[in-house]
Amino acid sequence: MADGLTIALDGMGGDNAPDAIVRGAAIARERMPQLRYLIYGDESRLRPLLDAEPVLKDVVDLRHTDQVVANTDKPSAALRTGKRSSMRLAIDAVQADEAACAVSAGNTGALMAMAMFGLRTIAGVERPAICSFFPTERGETCMLDLGANVACDADNLVQFAVMGEAFARTAMGIDKPTVGLLNVGVEDLKGKDEVKLAASSLRASDLPIEFKGFVEGDDIARGTVDVVVTDGFTGNIALKTAEGTSRLISAFLREAFQSSLSAKIGYLFARRAMQKLKLRVDPRRYNGAVLLGLNGIVVKSHGGTDALGFANAIGVAYDMATHGFIAKMKQDFERLRAPDSGA
Amino acid sequence: MADGLTIALDGMGGDNAPDAIVRGAAIARERMPQLRYLIYGDESRLRPLLDAEPVLKDVVDLRHTDQVVANTDKPSAALRTGKRSSMRLAIDAVQADEAACAVSAGNTGALMAMAMFGLRTIAGVERPAICSFFPTERGETCMLDLGANVACDADNLVQFAVMGEAFARTAMGIDKPTVGLLNVGVEDLKGKDEVKLAASSLRASDLPIEFKGFVEGDDIARGTVDVVVTDGFTGNIALKTAEGTSRLISAFLREAFQSSLSAKIGYLFARRAMQKLKLRVDPRRYNGAVLLGLNGIVVKSHGGTDALGFANAIGVAYDMATHGFIAKMKQDFERLRAPDSGA
Repeated sequence: MADGLTIALDGMGGDNAPDAIVRGAAIARERMPQLRYLIYGDESRLRPLLDAEPVLKDVVDLRHTDQVVANTDKPSAALRTGKRSSMRLAIDAVQADEAACAVSAGNTGALMAMAMFGLRTIAGVERPAICSFFPTERGETCMLDLGANVACDADNLVQFAVMGEAFARTAMGIDKPTVGLLNVGVEDLKGKDEVKLAASSLRASDLPIEFKGFVEGDDIARGTVDVVVTDGFTGNIALKTAEGTSRLISAFLREAFQSSLSAKIGYLFARRAMQKLKLRVDPRRYNGAVLLGLNGIVVKSHGGTDALGFANAIGVAYDMATHGFIAKMKQDFERLRAPDSGA
Repeated sequence: MADGLTIALDGMGGDNAPDAIVRGAAIARERMPQLRYLIYGDESRLRPLLDAEPVLKDVVDLRHTDQVVANTDKPSAALRTGKRSSMRLAIDAVQADEAACAVSAGNTGALMAMAMFGLRTIAGVERPAICSFFPTERGETCMLDLGANVACDADNLVQFAVMGEAFARTAMGIDKPTVGLLNVGVEDLKGKDEVKLAASSLRASDLPIEFKGFVEGDDIARGTVDVVVTDGFTGNIALKTAEGTSRLISAFLREAFQSSLSAKIGYLFARRAMQKLKLRVDPRRYNGAVLLGLNGIVVKSHGGTDALGFANAIGVAYDMATHGFIAKMKQDFERLRAPDSGA
């Protein structure tokens, strides 16, 4: 296991574990041949699944543990009692530099608690944030925070901007990502105090960030900026509102295609195009929420996703690791802190 | 102009005024034959338009004014200098009991300022809120606040719940509307303090409200509750995120139908069904945001809407007026205040 990039997987996290984890690992390995895995979990269940995937032969180090974090476990309890859990061991592997990143489809709160405890935030980051992708008219946009912090002050928002920008440069491969602060209007006078204050700080800073000022809710899908920054309360509600709206229109579309014989015939002709459309808004494509701000890369896969979705989450972790996300982010925060220390 | 219900219209507000206003008034009058109008604005422009609508003959009292509130006017300036504006006069007509309600497609901030100044909030309401409809899997849901108050405390949210419930009972005709508080999770422990506190108050109160606890962003489109209560910052972003997502998927759908010859043929067969779908999510259908909490009914039409959209906004005002919205809301707030006065 010398060459390549090693990713630690929580083999038991998520509704479809361990099957979706192993199958997802195989799909990801087919895409990225330099991948190696450390997989934690129940050996008696994982071994037969691994044996069924020829592509994973000789690239997996399977480490047995009985302990699993349940979805119903409270973060504090998981942190206290889950020291030998598959989730915790995957994070410990990142901490011990055995793996470049960890991916789990398990309990989000527990993962955040364990990641914070095990990896700590990097210097300059008060709180980590959850970041993920959104489809847009122009491609993809990322947004943070999506729910780690329900209340945020201006400093938190500025830090999220720095973290999100580094994420867009590495995981999304954008040279000079643009950043916007989510607000209820684009005028300087509108919005919450902490958002206005964060905008002033970002404008005044000498950080190499392409700050575009305020953006509104409809700018997310429009792809006006590459990085949308907001507090975890607003971000979580925007994310779920977008998901709900997408589901609603899909349901309306299905009903429309069933509403008459003519529409049904139309569907037969348009089927391939509709399948491509479905793929285009497929949540699995955008699977992989990243815990940003820590001394290590941790990616949270949606708990209900399948192997394909899990493979995409591994892909996000891989992109961040191969593009030196942590080093870049640390550099940015050193620069962010410099004016203070010189003052 | 003795019988029927009189609605005051700002004849000059909105991007398509005065044409869309007069044409919208005609469409609404065709639907609701007991409607009468007081229309304020430039007589030289309005008179010819009115003369072209036979259905409006003898049901319009046209009152001339030169003054118009511009979209760029600041609310405070509009309030100070726009005393003879078409917007202000329409609100004054409600205050003077000449009209049962006012409808304007003009500057939202100015309308809110003038409505607050002219009509005042009813006893027990600290701040008015903006409320509007959303399409859902089950029909329609209303949400408030959509942007009047960027920061809200628990008391504001409780008041919004009472106002929204009265709105759903009158304008939406729902016998026992269900109410939910927008949050980042449905568990009691999750979310912002003010949201948790508002939930406790609503649970403890003896108000006849069907309070269902917390709902999440995807519950808006799901139609889990009839009334979604949130602060104006979150509500505005949820509204615009939903609009943006809807537009994005419509754009994807158009592209899909253009992506191959087969898809184009499919569209020809499915065209009528797709047109119905378009109508189903047509923003004009959901036009008409209501300023709730005032001693009078004021409806804000989207500034960019056409005659059909404006007619729908008139319809919302009409439904509220004919179902005694103000009286019902006052009654609710008397009940809400009773425990305090008795303590």
